[in-house]
Amino acid sequence: MPNPTAAMLVIGDEILSGRTRDANMHYLAGQLTEIGIDLKEVRVVSDDRDAIVAAVKALSVRYADVFTSGGIGPTHDDITADCIAAAFGAHIDVRDDARALLQAHYDRSGQELNEARLRMARIPDGADLIDNPVSTAPGFSLGNVHVMAGVPSVFKAMVASVLPKLTGGAPLLSRTLRLMKGEGDIAGPLGQFAQDFPDLSVGSYPFQKDGVYGSNVVVRGSDAAALDTAMAALEATFAA
Amino acid sequence: MPNPTAAMLVIGDEILSGRTRDANMHYLAGQLTEIGIDLKEVRVVSDDRDAIVAAVKALSVRYADVFTSGGIGPTHDDITADCIAAAFGAHIDVRDDARALLQAHYDRSGQELNEARLRMARIPDGADLIDNPVSTAPGFSLGNVHVMAGVPSVFKAMVASVLPKLTGGAPLLSRTLRLMKGEGDIAGPLGQFAQDFPDLSVGSYPFQKDGVYGSNVVVRGSDAAALDTAMAALEATFAA
Repeated sequence: MPNPTAAMLVIGDEILSGRTRDANMHYLAGQLTEIGIDLKEVRVVSDDRDAIVAAVKALSVRYADVFTSGGIGPTHDDITADCIAAAFGAHIDVRDDARALLQAHYDRSGQELNEARLRMARIPDGADLIDNPVSTAPGFSLGNVHVMAGVPSVFKAMVASVLPKLTGGAPLLSRTLRLMKGEGDIAGPLGQFAQDFPDLSVGSYPFQKDGVYGSNVVVRGSDAAALDTAMAALEATFAA
Repeated sequence: MPNPTAAMLVIGDEILSGRTRDANMHYLAGQLTEIGIDLKEVRVVSDDRDAIVAAVKALSVRYADVFTSGGIGPTHDDITADCIAAAFGAHIDVRDDARALLQAHYDRSGQELNEARLRMARIPDGADLIDNPVSTAPGFSLGNVHVMAGVPSVFKAMVASVLPKLTGGAPLLSRTLRLMKGEGDIAGPLGQFAQDFPDLSVGSYPFQKDGVYGSNVVVRGSDAAALDTAMAALEATFAA
């Protein structure tokens, strides 16, 4: 059975302007691979209502799960929650359960739960809250879309809250053969190898070290025995 | 006049599996901002023909320019050039001008221009070659799509070859005000500030330093005088 599929939607002008380098995509990709969910597509869009709604609609019908990062803080440009609600036609307002979490948090820290902070309690009807052990303001899951913060430490904590609830497939295993040959020298036999093992995915990633070209050949699959067989064949091919 | 728009398409299973962390998106974003082209969307897709063709079609009709990275090497999974040709309905085969570049390169280095390497001379009819001063194998521009390598050093060199040919708008200037206040404390006045200066883009990016919450408020626009006026107003707002 093929693995479940997923997509990610990164929301934020700061990524697209080059001001901030996104870290969440790489983190989520690694986490999903570990539990056997195939990340098939990532989109990055700006803090623009139409762009966010259109991307959520397109991705949520195409993939089993969608993960978003960014745009759920207290400021005027944090519009993700309202956009997700719009994409699903759900009603959204400050919700009592989220407000109670924030109230307790700001009571503890002696800060005011002002109007801006209360925006972080805007949760669509029907959504399940995602726990935020770092800074309390929750994310949420609505339908198959999991809405999380952009701040990397909070994003990671929310991913840890969400992933155990999802059913992954077989974890993807990978084996690497490091060759001190350029891609152009290995591409012929490597193409043949990929044809010989159609159930495995075969990639080649060039590098340069001390002026010499090399390639890491990465073979991926979920069957450890099949991978062992393939790697033995691969080593024999290039040992010649 | 609004700035020209652009999108980027990153092609590669290695990014989506979490094996490799993409570096090209952040680099291109910064370069485009400098010359006044607005990067509006990025997509990352796997080495899959249908996914690549669909993304190229969607992005090339929506944005003035599209930049791709990845999938133009010599191995069996390098299918980008053929996918771009398919998206535009263009014929593709080994082209004499690209072959001549590769032949001269491999003659110099005493390596064989074998069948795999010759794949890198597959260029669609009507495309302009993009110079690759790092490793010779060219990228190409077809219509408004600029096809470049995924290896970061080569990607950067190709970006440097392409950007001077594009007409940018007014470079986007940005000013930052660093406040040692959390977003929840500044969001109210900041929303008012954003309304007062509708021609500028106002973003707020939280950070934590030594356990204290702070926010970088970034104001962006192409008119330096307008930015100066706005920053003075912003400083006055938070000096109180």
